[in-house]
Amino acid sequence: MHGGGVHIEIINTGTELLLGNTQNTHGTWLGRELFRLGLRVARQITIPDGATIEETLSESVRRSDVVIITGGLGPTSDDITREATAAVLGCELIEDEAALRSLEAFFATRKKVMAPSNRKQAQSPVGADVLPNGNGTAPGIYVPPRLNPIRPCAIFLLPGPPRELYPMFFAEVEPRLRALAGVSSDRKMLEMKFTGIGESDFHQAIDDQLAGVNGLEYGYCARIGEVDLRLIGSEEAVLRSRGIAEAAFAANLVSDDGTSLEAVVLRQLRKQGMKLATAESCTGGLVASRLTDVPGCSDVFTHGFVTYANRSKVEILGVEENVLQQCGAVSEEVARQMAEGALRVSLADVAVAVTGIAGPSGGTPEKPVGTAWLAFARRNLPTITEKVFHLRDRNGFKKAVSQSVLDLVRRHTKLPL
Amino acid sequence: MHGGGVHIEIINTGTELLLGNTQNTHGTWLGRELFRLGLRVARQITIPDGATIEETLSESVRRSDVVIITGGLGPTSDDITREATAAVLGCELIEDEAALRSLEAFFATRKKVMAPSNRKQAQSPVGADVLPNGNGTAPGIYVPPRLNPIRPCAIFLLPGPPRELYPMFFAEVEPRLRALAGVSSDRKMLEMKFTGIGESDFHQAIDDQLAGVNGLEYGYCARIGEVDLRLIGSEEAVLRSRGIAEAAFAANLVSDDGTSLEAVVLRQLRKQGMKLATAESCTGGLVASRLTDVPGCSDVFTHGFVTYANRSKVEILGVEENVLQQCGAVSEEVARQMAEGALRVSLADVAVAVTGIAGPSGGTPEKPVGTAWLAFARRNLPTITEKVFHLRDRNGFKKAVSQSVLDLVRRHTKLPL
Repeated sequence: MHGGGVHIEIINTGTELLLGNTQNTHGTWLGRELFRLGLRVARQITIPDGATIEETLSESVRRSDVVIITGGLGPTSDDITREATAAVLGCELIEDEAALRSLEAFFATRKKVMAPSNRKQAQSPVGADVLPNGNGTAPGIYVPPRLNPIRPCAIFLLPGPPRELYPMFFAEVEPRLRALAGVSSDRKMLEMKFTGIGESDFHQAIDDQLAGVNGLEYGYCARIGEVDLRLIGSEEAVLRSRGIAEAAFAANLVSDDGTSLEAVVLRQLRKQGMKLATAESCTGGLVASRLTDVPGCSDVFTHGFVTYANRSKVEILGVEENVLQQCGAVSEEVARQMAEGALRVSLADVAVAVTGIAGPSGGTPEKPVGTAWLAFARRNLPTITEKVFHLRDRNGFKKAVSQSVLDLVRRHTKLPL
Repeated sequence: MHGGGVHIEIINTGTELLLGNTQNTHGTWLGRELFRLGLRVARQITIPDGATIEETLSESVRRSDVVIITGGLGPTSDDITREATAAVLGCELIEDEAALRSLEAFFATRKKVMAPSNRKQAQSPVGADVLPNGNGTAPGIYVPPRLNPIRPCAIFLLPGPPRELYPMFFAEVEPRLRALAGVSSDRKMLEMKFTGIGESDFHQAIDDQLAGVNGLEYGYCARIGEVDLRLIGSEEAVLRSRGIAEAAFAANLVSDDGTSLEAVVLRQLRKQGMKLATAESCTGGLVASRLTDVPGCSDVFTHGFVTYANRSKVEILGVEENVLQQCGAVSEEVARQMAEGALRVSLADVAVAVTGIAGPSGGTPEKPVGTAWLAFARRNLPTITEKVFHLRDRNGFKKAVSQSVLDLVRRHTKLPL
């Protein structure tokens, strides 16, 4: 098997995944990691804990080169992924000495007594590899293709909890997949983040050029106010296509190493020794919250004001009462006064402000729901204002506007090359 | 077929769902809505656009009473869900007059010319119901069990975009499912939200009692700092189990109609005519952002301060320099002064403050990463302080602490019964 031609199926077990209260993040996470290796998921199947795993695995094995199963390796009676796999392979489970010792050590370190039910976690099909789990009791299992009597399909059994699954994937699964699928080790991946443009802009402007780059795989991921372009292939192919994308959308390029917009803003300001203050009305603290998602932000982001009520705009930021009356809370002038007020009060070097109409109510014909005014104030430089329009539901609006706010700062604090 | 015994499978089509950049929210959403009707998803399958849909549908139909397919109803060559369904049923697609007229009207209203490729969206298998789509071009399709030559399995073909899928589910799918599955119309669902306790507390305290309630289905959904208990069944069963849960955890009950913690806090304060101010350090604006996620919050939530830097705690909220030095930024006294400062500056009736160590760095043996001090200040009443500890990654910590902050306000502004 080789690269794109490898048929991979993912089976996620877990009753809670089908009741509508838990997102199946494993399927997405594995899809992303496999894509990074140039591999694609042909089918992803979610089933409840228990009985259907054997039937499902048996079907998947008949279609696949690789099957990855998550969950069902625990000690309870519902955890039967090991047993089902042995049944599909027509082989027996045997106790693995090393796995048992490592289980016993896991409990000993935590000064707990190992329950008899845990002992089955040390079992694996005859001839399979036991994959050590440094973060939980359930070791993983790898069944190499040669052990599979149905067809040469490799099977990975992985634990459900993310903190156990992720490290095991990197340490034990990825190297085996690379070998199985002939993934070349000089394969590069680049994730370019753009803002202020949509996926269709890429399709129109550069899709043909990217499609012409030899040995390149690429994909878009559009989120609210953001498009990620993932480039995967040889170093040459990745660098060439990076150049194509940058030439077309230089002004919109946020980062080419997956760094978030908020982290880029903080990095740019930090390099220039600048402090930032924020004054938010319609985004209600989301801009501040995104900035503080980045560890170590406190040396740059010092003051955040959420002035949702008109009164607080006046009292805290010094917006003039009569400007509020004449121009309305959502206006260029109020945004300007909010930003300049935040700069004054905080003694920061730059301040960004936003005021808008999230809806559902509060719109007028002149200022419909979705309108927002942004302002960026700087010491000894004129304040920059900008109007944006994002017609979305309340949360989508907050997200989109916060993106516009952060991008305003990014564009006007860019370092010269 | 009846209630719990109905075998339902969901097939989500979409190449982007398997590349790891888009969460499959449809699967989760449908799982939740079906659970509300007392129905369970036996299997959920994600496949790429295109060829494999026919094979997958054919397999699912052989196992199921109901199959729900999302996506692949668009006008492009990849959109072949209609064709695949006709192939599985062994019938032809015919053009539906009404569907064609409604398609033409959709384009006419938007002053656009309908492309020839759109015409195929008016096609459906002979005898199937065309489900009108008020929000897009693709009508849905319902194939009743009697049309299915393989076995009496009903098939729903639904559009991919959520704003088209959700309304069509409620208007067209739910009534048909109720009739098919014999869902009694007096079936009630209640979603009780609890905070400050974990799922294991429910297992220990009331799981046995709930399991004993006749005709009740229930499930837990644990999120960070929150457990939802969903109760479904006859009115009597739901009310009885509601009583059991409330008796066990009255102090932790946030709402019994799915209302979020932030909305409950705003509602309680609004009823008492109170204004709220927030002063956040480690949550960095997340508390404010959650409050402003609720429409109409501005009559209650007036001032938000994000005082991430020590300097801003002093300058904006009047925290005393020497208290910061002596007690440290993460201390009971600083939390108290932040809350009281926010109250003073904002002239609000109540103010809540939080200061903590999100990590990854900044912890000490006395104040490890995960520690936060909260304070709740009220006019003419003593300030309440509380220490919490949430050891999680940065985002999890912010979420958990914001939950503790909002719950502190909730508990101390509860209305007498």
